[in-house]
Amino acid sequence: MSFDEASLKVHRELSGKISILPKVKINDIKDLATFYTPGIAAVSKKIAEKTCNVWKYTSRSNLVAVISDGSAVLGLGNIGPEAAHPVMAGKAVLFKEFANIDAFPICLDTQDPQKIIETCKILAPSFAGINLEDISAPRCFEIERELQDLKIPVMHDDQHGTAVVVLAGLINATKVTGKNLSKSKIVIVGVGAAGTAIAHMVNDFTKGKAEIIAVNRQGMVCNINDLENRKICEAVNKNKISGKLEDALLGADIFIGVSAAGVLKKSLVSKMAPNPIIFAMANPVPEIMPNEAKEAGAMIVATGRSDFANQVNNVLAFPGIFRGALDAKATKISKEMLLAAAHALANCVKNPTKEKILPNPLDKSVALTIAEAVKKEAIKQKIAREACR
Amino acid sequence: MSFDEASLKVHRELSGKISILPKVKINDIKDLATFYTPGIAAVSKKIAEKTCNVWKYTSRSNLVAVISDGSAVLGLGNIGPEAAHPVMAGKAVLFKEFANIDAFPICLDTQDPQKIIETCKILAPSFAGINLEDISAPRCFEIERELQDLKIPVMHDDQHGTAVVVLAGLINATKVTGKNLSKSKIVIVGVGAAGTAIAHMVNDFTKGKAEIIAVNRQGMVCNINDLENRKICEAVNKNKISGKLEDALLGADIFIGVSAAGVLKKSLVSKMAPNPIIFAMANPVPEIMPNEAKEAGAMIVATGRSDFANQVNNVLAFPGIFRGALDAKATKISKEMLLAAAHALANCVKNPTKEKILPNPLDKSVALTIAEAVKKEAIKQKIAREACR
Repeated sequence: MSFDEASLKVHRELSGKISILPKVKINDIKDLATFYTPGIAAVSKKIAEKTCNVWKYTSRSNLVAVISDGSAVLGLGNIGPEAAHPVMAGKAVLFKEFANIDAFPICLDTQDPQKIIETCKILAPSFAGINLEDISAPRCFEIERELQDLKIPVMHDDQHGTAVVVLAGLINATKVTGKNLSKSKIVIVGVGAAGTAIAHMVNDFTKGKAEIIAVNRQGMVCNINDLENRKICEAVNKNKISGKLEDALLGADIFIGVSAAGVLKKSLVSKMAPNPIIFAMANPVPEIMPNEAKEAGAMIVATGRSDFANQVNNVLAFPGIFRGALDAKATKISKEMLLAAAHALANCVKNPTKEKILPNPLDKSVALTIAEAVKKEAIKQKIAREACR
Repeated sequence: MSFDEASLKVHRELSGKISILPKVKINDIKDLATFYTPGIAAVSKKIAEKTCNVWKYTSRSNLVAVISDGSAVLGLGNIGPEAAHPVMAGKAVLFKEFANIDAFPICLDTQDPQKIIETCKILAPSFAGINLEDISAPRCFEIERELQDLKIPVMHDDQHGTAVVVLAGLINATKVTGKNLSKSKIVIVGVGAAGTAIAHMVNDFTKGKAEIIAVNRQGMVCNINDLENRKICEAVNKNKISGKLEDALLGADIFIGVSAAGVLKKSLVSKMAPNPIIFAMANPVPEIMPNEAKEAGAMIVATGRSDFANQVNNVLAFPGIFRGALDAKATKISKEMLLAAAHALANCVKNPTKEKILPNPLDKSVALTIAEAVKKEAIKQKIAREACR
């Protein structure tokens, strides 16, 4: 049976993948009086006296909303909130399995950024964090930005989860190849949610020293007029290079593709610097197949696929990032926390090789390691909510 | 240990009462590929092709949102969304324990009716039903009404859950006392969510034949100017009686209190018709204590408390009502479905007596019986959503 068939079968037979389970049983009138009225009133009063008691006395402290508007689901595009549901529920499964976080899928019947922002604000008292998911660019940038003052961590995983895993992969890939990321020329193809976040994160990591050029379908991003892309351009493409992909790739050390199947031809790889690093993450068919990239001289190839070496899979990052943020009682997920996550993730591979720059996505110790690092950084930065005294 | 102490202890030790559990395990790369990418894409595509497939392939079909704005929580009043959380989570526990429904507590950071309505509409694609809870009157009427075209069942439990249990209790109480509900004079004290719904439901049940007078703090409801109360007045108080509680109670057969402690004095009970029925449901201290009511001549007394006979507890109704509506794939919960629920609930007591007009709230067979009746009525009324072919 194919994965498609198996997936349809399981979803149909189980009616989806998540259920909500009480931590307590109601067996007698005492249970009812303790967990519901009249006993529950004491808990409500406690929180009414001091709102912060909600963290101590309710399940909120471990609840994360996985919120999507269905506008950019997997590689399927704008398929709407109902069709996004199984993906968000899948994310909830991963949150629980990898980080023991109670995550709940919420698919919104609006694609208006202002309404999405307002809905998230209205929902906030029910959650300890919000994982935005599969919301199309450039709307995702505005939505995430406007929610940073919500006093709970809000992260768009397609941006930062991906960026953390890519940066971790790059850290180890440069170790293997002997390249220095800060002295590298990096070409990012695809300037949606992931590409933009990767550009920013690599730029932050290298303190602006790497030469980063982001390229979209029309050419390099300096040609693009919308606000978000102008910002990346200003931040990373300091030499204001414009032209075509082949111009950008001339002498480049690293290719990062979050674009479409077959975008990177073998002939283009051969124009790159010696021992180039290729991240070809288009799904399901990458920008270039690993064997072709290697034939053309690539030293390291990573893809989004589980059937090749070096899989870039967000599950390596988001469970640990949120676990760490929740454990630290952080009010947001800062750049520094994301960088700490990337470092921790890179360090999970003790001896990186060409075929192993990232841990196995199923290694459940990874999330715990990242959580520790993220928590430590949050505490260092003092971005925890006030203690409840 | 008191219920209050026990409740605080359990909530603190367990960090709340609910968790979200995957129905599947991620043990190997095949699991990841089946429950997440790439296999999940097949499920999303299936739903993108036909939205109705969401009911077959996701957990939506069994998910109910328990939504509150924290404006009228228990008897504690407007204590806000955080303090409402443990109550909504308690409701979720009861939904699961009594009807195997996966219910999720959502506490909103707004008390603006239009924003609550919009938020519920935006959240709808994630749920099979919405249980509105602890939203103050008269806002609750508008909110519930505006959500009736949402194509999923939306019910404000404080209104209709309570009304169903009260009506079931009245059906059995009149059997015991030999009264005829349609020929009875019924005085309802308290015209908030519960009182209003009880008035409407008894009026529907008796096809307008019972004489119902609703009384608030200022006197009978005809004196009140707001829209919702005018409507009850027009519906039930056809003789446009106004005056005071003691005038209303003269010769009344039934007193229904959803008001405040001590409202009904013994001297007032003695002005009622012979063998009066008293539902004194103020919590935690009823309008009149059962022993006092009986000393003054009451034949049957019901309260909201578990330590007296005849407890009126919403858990007798809402789990079964939603289970039935979900099983019938109903697009709403109609008056007729609520009446069917009340009949079914009344019939759960085979031989009603003065001390037993309602089943034990812990009797888990009740929800199933009600669900059957509600489902049957929904099918009869043909208010199921279209079949997904």
